[in-house]
Amino acid sequence: MKIGILGTGIVGNTIGHKLVQRNHEVKMGSRTAKNEKAMQWVAAAGSKASQGTFKDAAEFGQIIFNCTKGDISIDALRLAGTTTLSGKILVDVSNPLDFSKGMPPSLFISNTDSLGEAIQREFPETFVVKTLNTMNCSLMVDSTLVKGDHDVFISGNDAAAKATVVKLLTEDFGWKNVLDLGDITGARSTEMLLPIWLRLYGKFGNANFNFHITK
Amino acid sequence: MKIGILGTGIVGNTIGHKLVQRNHEVKMGSRTAKNEKAMQWVAAAGSKASQGTFKDAAEFGQIIFNCTKGDISIDALRLAGTTTLSGKILVDVSNPLDFSKGMPPSLFISNTDSLGEAIQREFPETFVVKTLNTMNCSLMVDSTLVKGDHDVFISGNDAAAKATVVKLLTEDFGWKNVLDLGDITGARSTEMLLPIWLRLYGKFGNANFNFHITK
Repeated sequence: MKIGILGTGIVGNTIGHKLVQRNHEVKMGSRTAKNEKAMQWVAAAGSKASQGTFKDAAEFGQIIFNCTKGDISIDALRLAGTTTLSGKILVDVSNPLDFSKGMPPSLFISNTDSLGEAIQREFPETFVVKTLNTMNCSLMVDSTLVKGDHDVFISGNDAAAKATVVKLLTEDFGWKNVLDLGDITGARSTEMLLPIWLRLYGKFGNANFNFHITK
Repeated sequence: MKIGILGTGIVGNTIGHKLVQRNHEVKMGSRTAKNEKAMQWVAAAGSKASQGTFKDAAEFGQIIFNCTKGDISIDALRLAGTTTLSGKILVDVSNPLDFSKGMPPSLFISNTDSLGEAIQREFPETFVVKTLNTMNCSLMVDSTLVKGDHDVFISGNDAAAKATVVKLLTEDFGWKNVLDLGDITGARSTEMLLPIWLRLYGKFGNANFNFHITK
């Protein structure tokens, strides 16, 4: 499958590498056509990897991953373009983390709204699927890094788009437990897991853990 | 042990019954000395149960449980009295749920603050311990209702107070996994679990589930 990755940080890098390994063609997008980090990633990831602008990556992909930092996500997606994103699946793994008041970060949108919902409102013709935002990026692409039962949550308005993403999560990233939280308003409930995730990360001193809903 | 319960609703009722069963002496407190629900609870719970005002219950207990609704918790605790609560352990199981905008409720305090912290600020001489607020009250007092590994979180500024509460959670309520999140600011991270808890409750149609941190 052709996949666009928006963002050149550790999250985009990790997801991009995994998808190339899994034989997908991946284009990493950033603000500029010749981003140094994106070019390094292409050099490391091999012949199925390419790079370009946010718009290039969004045009290329059948599925687009939003791996930009939460505070610039909407800007980055605007650069990708409303028309370009229209009718495509946007997998939103970002979080609305506000580092401006020191550590630990708070959320700049929460409780009665979420970044996932804000993106869906801004791009109503795009199928926004919120998932993977409740864990470290190494775990996102390899669920076996944590032993025992643990879950990835998924929220989105379109059932077919969610089914496509669940297939990718299962087949490419090894996820067994995908918990569907319903429509995109579920994003606020998973973005609000960040405070306890950060607290536990501080307690354990590593990110090798995940949430599980025990029934 | 002598325990005060503030609140006559289902949470106070359930915790009160369990503590009496476990051979503690329990006084349920409410706004008035002769609250009908409190009197019914006493009649059902037996000779170790009694009732009175918030202040009566707070004076009676070595440990006090705040089982009032979040939006009236601080008022109820003021009626119990700053001096009365001074030096005592207050187990805060409440949540800052705001039902005024319809279902599902949002949180009237969150993100950069929490109800647990607000209570600690208002009653600085009280040892506030936030716990049990991330589940249904039946599960609070009987961890075996959910099979498999699952967790109760605890936050508070005083290590000795937390140790006393952990002992009660373990011995009286059957908890095996108590996850210490550190000081009372941990309360904001557990109160922010309510949105996903409510979402899952809607999805499953019952409250027989709980959070587990898989490592």
